[in-house]
Amino acid sequence: MDDPLAKLKNGTLKLYALEKELPPKEAVRVRRAYIEDETGADLAALGTFSIGIDRVVKRNIENMIGAVQVPVGVAGPLKVMGEYANGTYWLPLATTEGALVASANRGCSAITKAGGADVRIIKDGMTRAPVFAARDIVHAREIADWAAAHTADLAAAAEQTTARGKLLSITPYIVGTNVFLRCAYDTKDAMGMNMVTIATAEIADRVEAATGARLIALSGNMCTDKKPSAINMIEGRGKSVVAGVHLSNDLIETVLKTDAKTLAEVNYRKNLIGSVRAGALGFNAHAANIIAALYLACGQDAAHVVEGSSCITTAEATDDGAYVAVTLPAVQVGTVGGGTGIDTQAACLSLLGVAGGGEPEGANAKAFAEIIAAGVLAGELSLLGALAANHLARAHKELGRG
Amino acid sequence: MDDPLAKLKNGTLKLYALEKELPPKEAVRVRRAYIEDETGADLAALGTFSIGIDRVVKRNIENMIGAVQVPVGVAGPLKVMGEYANGTYWLPLATTEGALVASANRGCSAITKAGGADVRIIKDGMTRAPVFAARDIVHAREIADWAAAHTADLAAAAEQTTARGKLLSITPYIVGTNVFLRCAYDTKDAMGMNMVTIATAEIADRVEAATGARLIALSGNMCTDKKPSAINMIEGRGKSVVAGVHLSNDLIETVLKTDAKTLAEVNYRKNLIGSVRAGALGFNAHAANIIAALYLACGQDAAHVVEGSSCITTAEATDDGAYVAVTLPAVQVGTVGGGTGIDTQAACLSLLGVAGGGEPEGANAKAFAEIIAAGVLAGELSLLGALAANHLARAHKELGRG
Amino acid sequence: MDDPLAKLKNGTLKLYALEKELPPKEAVRVRRAYIEDETGADLAALGTFSIGIDRVVKRNIENMIGAVQVPVGVAGPLKVMGEYANGTYWLPLATTEGALVASANRGCSAITKAGGADVRIIKDGMTRAPVFAARDIVHAREIADWAAAHTADLAAAAEQTTARGKLLSITPYIVGTNVFLRCAYDTKDAMGMNMVTIATAEIADRVEAATGARLIALSGNMCTDKKPSAINMIEGRGKSVVAGVHLSNDLIETVLKTDAKTLAEVNYRKNLIGSVRAGALGFNAHAANIIAALYLACGQDAAHVVEGSSCITTAEATDDGAYVAVTLPAVQVGTVGGGTGIDTQAACLSLLGVAGGGEPEGANAKAFAEIIAAGVLAGELSLLGALAANHLARAHKELGRG
Amino acid sequence: MDDPLAKLKNGTLKLYALEKELPPKEAVRVRRAYIEDETGADLAALGTFSIGIDRVVKRNIENMIGAVQVPVGVAGPLKVMGEYANGTYWLPLATTEGALVASANRGCSAITKAGGADVRIIKDGMTRAPVFAARDIVHAREIADWAAAHTADLAAAAEQTTARGKLLSITPYIVGTNVFLRCAYDTKDAMGMNMVTIATAEIADRVEAATGARLIALSGNMCTDKKPSAINMIEGRGKSVVAGVHLSNDLIETVLKTDAKTLAEVNYRKNLIGSVRAGALGFNAHAANIIAALYLACGQDAAHVVEGSSCITTAEATDDGAYVAVTLPAVQVGTVGGGTGIDTQAACLSLLGVAGGGEPEGANAKAFAEIIAAGVLAGELSLLGALAANHLARAHKELGRG
Repeated sequence: MDDPLAKLKNGTLKLYALEKELPPKEAVRVRRAYIEDETGADLAALGTFSIGIDRVVKRNIENMIGAVQVPVGVAGPLKVMGEYANGTYWLPLATTEGALVASANRGCSAITKAGGADVRIIKDGMTRAPVFAARDIVHAREIADWAAAHTADLAAAAEQTTARGKLLSITPYIVGTNVFLRCAYDTKDAMGMNMVTIATAEIADRVEAATGARLIALSGNMCTDKKPSAINMIEGRGKSVVAGVHLSNDLIETVLKTDAKTLAEVNYRKNLIGSVRAGALGFNAHAANIIAALYLACGQDAAHVVEGSSCITTAEATDDGAYVAVTLPAVQVGTVGGGTGIDTQAACLSLLGVAGGGEPEGANAKAFAEIIAAGVLAGELSLLGALAANHLARAHKELGRG
Repeated sequence: MDDPLAKLKNGTLKLYALEKELPPKEAVRVRRAYIEDETGADLAALGTFSIGIDRVVKRNIENMIGAVQVPVGVAGPLKVMGEYANGTYWLPLATTEGALVASANRGCSAITKAGGADVRIIKDGMTRAPVFAARDIVHAREIADWAAAHTADLAAAAEQTTARGKLLSITPYIVGTNVFLRCAYDTKDAMGMNMVTIATAEIADRVEAATGARLIALSGNMCTDKKPSAINMIEGRGKSVVAGVHLSNDLIETVLKTDAKTLAEVNYRKNLIGSVRAGALGFNAHAANIIAALYLACGQDAAHVVEGSSCITTAEATDDGAYVAVTLPAVQVGTVGGGTGIDTQAACLSLLGVAGGGEPEGANAKAFAEIIAAGVLAGELSLLGALAANHLARAHKELGRG
Repeated sequence: MDDPLAKLKNGTLKLYALEKELPPKEAVRVRRAYIEDETGADLAALGTFSIGIDRVVKRNIENMIGAVQVPVGVAGPLKVMGEYANGTYWLPLATTEGALVASANRGCSAITKAGGADVRIIKDGMTRAPVFAARDIVHAREIADWAAAHTADLAAAAEQTTARGKLLSITPYIVGTNVFLRCAYDTKDAMGMNMVTIATAEIADRVEAATGARLIALSGNMCTDKKPSAINMIEGRGKSVVAGVHLSNDLIETVLKTDAKTLAEVNYRKNLIGSVRAGALGFNAHAANIIAALYLACGQDAAHVVEGSSCITTAEATDDGAYVAVTLPAVQVGTVGGGTGIDTQAACLSLLGVAGGGEPEGANAKAFAEIIAAGVLAGELSLLGALAANHLARAHKELGRG
Repeated sequence: MDDPLAKLKNGTLKLYALEKELPPKEAVRVRRAYIEDETGADLAALGTFSIGIDRVVKRNIENMIGAVQVPVGVAGPLKVMGEYANGTYWLPLATTEGALVASANRGCSAITKAGGADVRIIKDGMTRAPVFAARDIVHAREIADWAAAHTADLAAAAEQTTARGKLLSITPYIVGTNVFLRCAYDTKDAMGMNMVTIATAEIADRVEAATGARLIALSGNMCTDKKPSAINMIEGRGKSVVAGVHLSNDLIETVLKTDAKTLAEVNYRKNLIGSVRAGALGFNAHAANIIAALYLACGQDAAHVVEGSSCITTAEATDDGAYVAVTLPAVQVGTVGGGTGIDTQAACLSLLGVAGGGEPEGANAKAFAEIIAAGVLAGELSLLGALAANHLARAHKELGRG
């Protein structure tokens, strides 16, 4: 008999192999039906998606049974004065946390009324750090020295695997018999994790062949990918971005309902002293909220919220108001590849004017990173203001996060 | 004239006020049209959602313009042997990163073939830590002492604000003139951030009134919410969960294509030594990938991926195989509230059998946390195995993360 | 033949066994002669010590060849308003770093002129955290649960080994198959590391016997001893002390040659922001300098400078000046045991009025810790002031650290 | 009247000014007498020092009242196979902690019997990182860019202040309006803190003049000096040194009384897992003990124990034994300047054959750093072995740390 569902049940067809037997849409439906059978759950809601499924099952997901829908709200207009993003933007925020869009919106209003947020990218380089085992510490240093002496050759090998990526640097670190080579790349408009993994594999092959080093893992965690880390905080990963805005006393009072001194004090006691004593690697109010909502809307890797939200927020009273800034050392984003091509996510990128490859290459990803930093600044301003006015609990009650 | 779009354009109607003039669906459509006008972007894709909008605009989002769709794949079956989750599960994973579901699937297979993953919740308590300013360090200690001496009264006050939450403890920390009171609560099936914020506001009011402390912020960052922190790693936040599995030599070879010693070595050199030298707060391969995909599918707060993914993975060769475990100190999840009630997300929770409130209260959230830990273990097993076999780059190439 | 030096050379006598053959003074002389022979170095300078050698070779050192001399300067008078130390003190500072005593002296002057430093001990408990291996994570939790359920019994067993120590708490932590039991003790006037190690050995024996846990190490590094750690920063080890002083605008100008705003700004940008971005566990200017000099003078374990110097310095402009405070979570000191009984070190303790056991027990060690905190505050004030006035380099040039 | 003591008492002579009125020895005696009078303490023991006082009061201390004596023991012979230190050494260890020298001695024995420890210096550069305030984030990047574009000029200016120091690099970091320029120098045989402070002051002057940056502090804590920090752990400060030794199974059994597997397990569960969960920046057993004892004996800055003891210890079972290594990223030592010239400390340096300037310049400080790393390795081996054999408590009881 040919019924795929029956074949799944009797084990003659593997769940992941459905797409080989059926058109994608049908495969997804049958798989969902099978899972419903197995679990007794009603999964109909997952089946009403409209995204182009052919692309998705090839590039974005395996064993697909449907899609979740995450509501998108807009915050804005937000005036951004970066080197790549220069203009007024509406931020698409995908979230299920009530009050978040409203909060971001208030922050955007403050920034735009203040004349806009300055934004600068300080550093740009996606990293991959394979770990090798050496025979002993003498061998470890030989490996590190060899890699340093052959960076140009290794760059050439790495760049053969990619049409666009450029190796920027290789930094060696030694721990006992372990050698880490932190390779940094310019990945243009791609977030680039896949690109740098493949390119670094070429480097690793040559290091192994020439030095007798034994490759343990292409990712040795000094990259550092998807884990909070001081190395990313200090040296950056992806784009290191900083955004700042000067708010006049008048604006602080009318929009944020507080004053410059209180704003600075809240930031100092909460975002600095509190995080310091907590042993935190994040010194901000809620950067992760904005990062998660923007990443999700725009098809970024949601696991990169971990480093993307590494943020130091500073707020200082000035002669005539306050200067508030956010420093984001590890914004890892792309406007091509990954989830950026899915219909709904592509729409959000186009809303920001950064969908697809930029002109010149890399310009769209950089513009996107600048907008993100300004968005995080908006979120920080709003929450700091709310806390300053002791309104956090009330806001939650009213907007009902449940 | 009554055309809301025209009113938006001429400024007589605020963007956020559309829902007061129009039914939700229509409000969303008009707002989207307005944003399309403003930006020139085509946002039609965002408009094809099917989730129940009445609930969403009230609880989950402001300024809604539509929804993004994130494909969901399943990994499983995964045998979990927890105290709340005991059985075989299919994990719904929402992601746009190709290869992730396939990888998790392989890990599930390894665990299930091994007889299942043991899981235990070690600690459970959602925290909120307001920061107060004292006049001086003598006053600071008086405030801390007063709170310690009045914990019962403060608990009573806090619990008046919540039908279900229970105050578990108040731990004071002093830094100069800053006093932090880290309040921990049992929040039952809710993730509970909103609940504990409101409850802690009551505590803060009483502390201020009795001691002359000045409340600076209801969240003083020693909570720590949505920032990676040692305090969460050490003392936990939400649910502290540990999961482990024993894999026989045979299973390691047939399913993971490596051996016990190599598996342990990869974990040691990458997840421990690499993370140590990177100054990381995460000691794992890619916990964040699994956490993000499960949180997203199941309506959790995506920003909680930051702490949820704080994970220490351990792998040790044993006499007859290997024992691999994951320790997750800060899993902050709920099965009621937040995004859990949205149709597609609710379907994913029901797929796990943990939708809504548990019996007894809290049992569903605990079961969910146990399943998550087992899922993270599956992800770690699979990626460690892939790295051990030096297959990472190849897997990426084949499954094409783009 | 009987010449010990000859016997050392021909291998019939071990270097460490000299004290069995000769009186201590002679043993040290012969050993030094042997080493001079072996190395060709002139070690005469090491031989002119005056400290009582009988006690030293029994308790403080093995293989003694002499003593180094470290110059001691005084800083003061320093007015301290603690609960145990209340009065005016002269700090003995043993250091070879020019300018340090002068700097501390200026800070003492500022504090004393300001009316004195308030000091409070927030927490007191010396810790030892053995690590046990469990069979699996289920066993791990059983071990932790058993220890929690038998704390009273374990306390009784532990306290049999010590005349004075009291077990305060046992806090379990689990990482995969590893169980850590962080045991905290009141060690009275002793620093107490030896005391708690011996006492915890009793606990470990019982845990092993009752649960089948396998003791890996009596110190499992969650103690944490002699390593910088967030757990000590957050939860404290030894004495957690905080000291603060209010300085008037006039005093800041006349003594520190700066103003309140600048003082606060230097602290903010350097001690907070700089340390934050450096991924530091210390947020101070030079607490380690004062700690090292006091510990060395007073016979403390010099390796405890590592945690003792964990310090968060805060400085805030107030209406009429500035409030500056230091928070030291891990001051591990004693006035009995260790090096406190050596003649020169005992003299330094007596200079502070805290030599030997206190009345009641523990009062001397507590008073000592309070004085230390006030001393660190003096050091911070002075260096912050110097930096504020941009005088650091000049001071170095003049006082010539070489 | 001319009695200086009387003049001190009636306030006509300042305590620090005694050396202007009297010869150093007499000044110290009078000062001590004054302090005895003030406090009632008997400080005679401090007065019996033999170190050359003229040099000391000029370079090493102010307000001197005498000296503390710290007993020195030797551990060795220790075979070191470095690039600068190559031979067999006796380590001078100044400590008051019983059992420490004996423990180090056992480790030395293990290493020497194993054929010696390999040691390599991976990186060498003393750092100073001034912090500047910028007007806003745009200005901040301009400052960083200007410094990067003028490194050669800044190097020339910096090097005018020093006969030997060479600027190696300037690395800028930005946090909001804060710009840190981490300047690294080759300081040859000097530890170099003073040298780099003075040199960096020149750089800071030029940055201020050219960019309008406002210098806040010559040390902005990203140096990082005397605070534990990830930046030092990752990028190093002073000398980054690694030492390793291969121990045969036979040697592990006969000298350390354990086996390779247990040795590796103790290191794994204690030094890695324990430190990881503690949020530590040190991953070792007791590096600080050896560092403190060597630094103290050899006239190093005792406050540098904080970073000097940043150590990652690794231990892996091999086919025929175990390979144990220590990685010390921040050994900040010198053989000239500071306390190195005091008679007893100079004797200890000469015992190691590294007193004074090296040939070529820098060779002595490098040799010293290599010996230190081998010494730390000895200490780790011994304590890991003792823990493995569960002998820690017993050793303490027998050797009586009190």
